Formats: sequence, C-alpha cells, structure tokens
Amino acid sequence: MQESPFAVVAKPGDRVADLSTPRPIIDEDRMERNIARTQAYMDQHSLNFRPHIKTHKIPALAAAQIAAGAKGINCQKISEAEVFAAAGFEDILITFNIIGAQKLERLGALNDQISDLKVVADSITTVDGLSSYFASTKPLTVLVECDTGGGRCGVQTAEEARTLARRINDLPGLTFGGLLNYPKPSSAEAVQAFFSKALSLLQTDGIICPIVSNGGTPSLFEAHLVSAATEHRAGTYIYNDRSMVRTGHCSEDDCAMHVLATVVSRPTVDRAVIDAGSKALTSDLLGFSDFGKVVGYPEAVIAGLSEEHGVIDLSKCGDRRPLIGEKVRIIPNHTCVVSNLFDTMVFHREGVVTRVESVAARGLVW
Amino acid sequence: MQESPFAVVAKPGDRVADLSTPRPIIDEDRMERNIARTQAYMDQHSLNFRPHIKTHKIPALAAAQIAAGAKGINCQKISEAEVFAAAGFEDILITFNIIGAQKLERLGALNDQISDLKVVADSITTVDGLSSYFASTKPLTVLVECDTGGGRCGVQTAEEARTLARRINDLPGLTFGGLLNYPKPSSAEAVQAFFSKALSLLQTDGIICPIVSNGGTPSLFEAHLVSAATEHRAGTYIYNDRSMVRTGHCSEDDCAMHVLATVVSRPTVDRAVIDAGSKALTSDLLGFSDFGKVVGYPEAVIAGLSEEHGVIDLSKCGDRRPLIGEKVRIIPNHTCVVSNLFDTMVFHREGVVTRVESVAARGLVW
Repeated sequence: MQESPFAVVAKPGDRVADLSTPRPIIDEDRMERNIARTQAYMDQHSLNFRPHIKTHKIPALAAAQIAAGAKGINCQKISEAEVFAAAGFEDILITFNIIGAQKLERLGALNDQISDLKVVADSITTVDGLSSYFASTKPLTVLVECDTGGGRCGVQTAEEARTLARRINDLPGLTFGGLLNYPKPSSAEAVQAFFSKALSLLQTDGIICPIVSNGGTPSLFEAHLVSAATEHRAGTYIYNDRSMVRTGHCSEDDCAMHVLATVVSRPTVDRAVIDAGSKALTSDLLGFSDFGKVVGYPEAVIAGLSEEHGVIDLSKCGDRRPLIGEKVRIIPNHTCVVSNLFDTMVFHREGVVTRVESVAARGLVW
Repeated sequence: MQESPFAVVAKPGDRVADLSTPRPIIDEDRMERNIARTQAYMDQHSLNFRPHIKTHKIPALAAAQIAAGAKGINCQKISEAEVFAAAGFEDILITFNIIGAQKLERLGALNDQISDLKVVADSITTVDGLSSYFASTKPLTVLVECDTGGGRCGVQTAEEARTLARRINDLPGLTFGGLLNYPKPSSAEAVQAFFSKALSLLQTDGIICPIVSNGGTPSLFEAHLVSAATEHRAGTYIYNDRSMVRTGHCSEDDCAMHVLATVVSRPTVDRAVIDAGSKALTSDLLGFSDFGKVVGYPEAVIAGLSEEHGVIDLSKCGDRRPLIGEKVRIIPNHTCVVSNLFDTMVFHREGVVTRVESVAARGLVW
C-alpha cells in the first residue's frame, strides 16, 4: 500500500512521547517476548503453530513469527492472503468458506501462485462450488470446519464432518486437508471429544487426516490439552490486549500495543476528553463496560467514545488527574480491530521509534 | 490515496449484485435526496449549513454538498482538513482542540494554504497554545466550544464562554470566530438558553460574534428552534443509518449506505453466518442490542460479530430464510465508522455501479 501524502510518518530515532496522536504503537521487546513465549510452548508440546495475521496484517511480523518456528500463516480473507503471498509466504490457510465466482477466480490465482494454499468449508454448497472451479486446474486443499461449541461456522457433529470429508475426498479438484475449529475459550474437553470422534470415523473410512487445527489466543496455553490436534492457530497473542489480560492469558506488561492519545479537554473536574475515539480504539467492548485501560490511571474509566473523542470519567481518581496536553497510553480492549484502522504502525523500544511498517492488508474489499 | 494493487475495484456499469463482498455501497439517488432535503430545510430557515465530512471523507461528495448550497465544510481532525484543502476547499472548520507543537505546525501550514480556516477551543491551555504559535504568522480564527449538555468538550457556562472569548480577542495571532456546541439530541431549548445568554454577555463586552454554530444530524430538523444559531453542522444525514431511522430523522428508504454481504454458512436451521463482521460493520451499537438491520429479513437479528464473520439469529424468521451464497444488504447502525474501514466506496443507481471513489481521508494518523 502506497503511503498517503497526508500521512504523518514517524522515523526511527523519534521519541514516542513526541509523536502526534492518536496513534497505536507497538513495543518491540514485548512483542518479541510474546512471539518467543508462545512458540516455546508449542515446541514443548510438539504442536505446529500457525499465527493468524489478522491481528497485525504486516508481512515483516509474519516473517518474524515464521523465523521463530511457526509452520505457516493463517489468513481470514483472500485479500490478506494475496498480500502475504506477494510477500513470499507459501503456506497459507484461509479459514473461511469461499463462495462466489469472483472469489473462486482469485482463489485459483492464489493457488497457482503458492505451493501450499488451504481453505476450509462447512457445507456441501461451499465444497461443490470449490470442486466445480478447481476440477479443471491445480487441486485445492480443503479442511472441514467443525463447530465444537464456538457457535460460529462449522458442521455440528462428527458424523457431518465425516460426510463432508468424504465428499471432498470424492470430488474432482479437491484434496481433503483435515479438520479445523474455532473453539469457545476453555473448552479443551469438548474440542478433544469432537475431534477424536471425527478422526475415528475418518479412520473407519480409510480417509487420512493430515491436519487437525485448533485455534484461538484465549485458549492458547490449553492447546496441549487437545491431544487430537496437530496444530494451533492464534493471532492476538503477538500484541495482546485488555481482553487477554482478563482471561489470564497475559499481564498488562505483556500488552505490546498501546494507543497513544492526548488529553485535549478537561471541561469539568471529573471529565477528561482525549483525541482517541471509536475511529482509534473501536467500539469493541468484548464484555467490558468501558473502552480501554488508561496506563498509570487505574481508576480512570473511558466511559464513552464518539468518533474522534474519548470521554474519561475521573470521578474515582484521587488528586492526580491527567492535565490538558498530557499524553496517555491506552491498552485497547481488542488489538486486532485497532490495527485495522491505521495505514501505518509505529514500533519502538523503550520509547524510541525503531521502524514504521505499512499495515499492508487493511482497507481492502476482501 | 493510492489504490492498493490488491484492491478489487468495481467499475461503472457493473451490477452491484455481482460485486465481491463484504462491501459498503451508496445509493446515489437516496444520497442526492438526503443532500437536497437537508439543504432545502436550511434555506427555508435561513441557516447556513456546514456538512461534516467525517461521514464520507470523499472530496467529490463535499463538492456536491457545496454545490447544493452548503457554506463550507466541517472536519474533525487536521488530516481530514489537509485532504480537503488539497482538493480545493477554502472554508474549513475543524471542531477540535488543537494541542501540541506538531499539530500547531500543520495547522499553520493549513492556515497559510486556505482563505478561511477556523478551529475551536474550550480552555485557556488550548487558546494560549494557539496564540503562541499564530502570533508570528497569519492570524487564526477560533470559536469557543460550549458544552450545552452534550457532555463532551466545551466550557460549562456562558460566563466561561465570555472569559475565553475575551482571551481570544485579547491575545495576539487569534481572531474570535464565535460560539459552537455539539448538543445532545432534542435539546433545542437548552442550546438556545446557553447561546443567548453567552451572546448577551459578549454584547456587553462589545465583542462581535460572527458565527453561532449548532450541530448534529439527530437534531438537524430542530435546527430552526435555536434562533441564536447562524449555522448548523451535520454529517450522517448524507448517508443516514439505522440510528437515524430510530430517532425518526429518516426512514429506511432514506438510508443510502448498505453493507453488501454474502451468507457463507448455515450451520443450523436458526443460524446464518455472513462475511461481514466487525471489520466491515464495526461494533458500534449506538444503543441497539444487535449490529445492523438485514433488508428483506425484518426478523433476522445480527446477534454477534467476530472480525470477519457476522452471526445472524434466524429463530424468529418464518420459512423464508437466507440460503448459503445469497447476498444480503445490511443497514449499518452507524454509517460514519463503516466508511472509515474501507479505502474505496462504490456508488450505484438502481443496482448499477456509477463510480468508485477513494475514501481519501481515512487511515491517516491525525
């Protein structure tokens, strides 16, 4: 993505404290620790690890994840996969039901371009659509998406998984790649039960299941409890956020992303207004009742957001309250959606800018 | 903004029904009606009208608003104003407290570039910062932001407004431009009371108040009830959205923006999953308990969003339920934040694409 002539770009050596706000910033040291810690856990349990790039959308970061030991990457849409294929990634799993002539054509081009493209399907409609396109070209690998309790996409039972796997196996143009889910947090037992039942049904049919892919950052460190799985996928872990602190997945000191904001108004004793609103922090609550955590002001509550203003309730704070012009750091509720709002991401070590990366896979229509 | 090589761009003549999803689309006829209806109302009541470009961030649309009779435009941040100044707009009001050396420098460059730049301030800190920069260059026009009940920025009383107006009047480099508020909906009486009291205090001091600027789409058609106001600002009215239907501001047939999405999964009888999640619709609830309205399926409830999936509860629907592969149109809860997620916007008349515009002022860091 080309940099806009209107973008205010930081450069290495700049002090983060001097940057224009609002702006998300990434602490390189914390990010590196998050990458290393997660990969070490996966290595310890002999699980393949597949980072989900939706969180950062930056090829250089995926390269660091691969360099640390990750097997391949996970994308959520074709446009993301296109950007990362162009950057040289060969093992890409798109965890989405791909439907419609236009998308199939782009998927075909991607499949020709890289060595190891995989997608998922949870219905006959999706599978038949894929087969009708790929029958006359390089075959596509398809995993069956299973709903092990997450309540999103996925076949509902192990029997349905078997039926769909058979169909993938039988139809021209497709290779059965395995099973996949997006679980609800802390449901290792249910995931294991679903996968092991499906695996035994596939074994009965003589269908080989190369991959069993479990996912999610919230359940990342429970991944070893699902012995049926061959790999785990996670995205948020690289930056972490307030929702991950709540699950006990990490501490606030593991949160690599902060949204830097400036206090622009103090209309009353109990109210501060910052220049970060829903177009910087997003409205994602993820179960919280407020819109992020202000570092250094634990009693401050980001009570409301309009598009470019955040209203902070200071009524529970003591005498020390942020002043007009003061810059504050906010741990966002959900890091992945913040990345998606900005064309560039600034990285730093101990407050000094190290690099500025283009958030290459954002703003695209699929 | 340069188009990404990975963007899937529609072209005039394409059928909207064939476009790749998820994608926001704008009905030109409805948009034109919204522009005309609002301008006619303002003309009828002899109010200047200042559209807020945060909703669309597209210079061509602001040009249409000016052509219809709008006096100037309203931006919410410097980067927006920079994009619109470069596109030739001369009368720009930035409704934000501008603080900090970097922003002041950019504001100075803007002020040199266009003939009629205005900003707001609600504190001595902001006003003194502006004066210290503009004392040695072309003077800047500053309005006093008043909190007439909106609970965001703004001085709290008419007396405070007078004090700040005096300071702007007295300090070098600044010209007092008037009063401004962002009201809570349906509060015309309180707005009128605040402004008329402040105006009489200013009159006592012999301070001329050229502009009294009231704002908001929810209270747009009550603008005439605030006789103290000389102008009204509104953004959302150009596209409209579900929240505007709820306030009675418009009907669903006045909503020019739809998010086009495809049903990609039907895991159960009562569940449909679409390819529009929080990265297409945003998580803005604006008081609703669900994430948008599915056109043609009034009983369908978009109950949950993950980043690229929307989960629709069909349990209240009759026998006719959306099928896998079916494209649906969604009226978003909040249109302004949807615009902000996409690099391009597709326009159509009766389902045939008329043009594709770059959402020029999005993705920038202030």
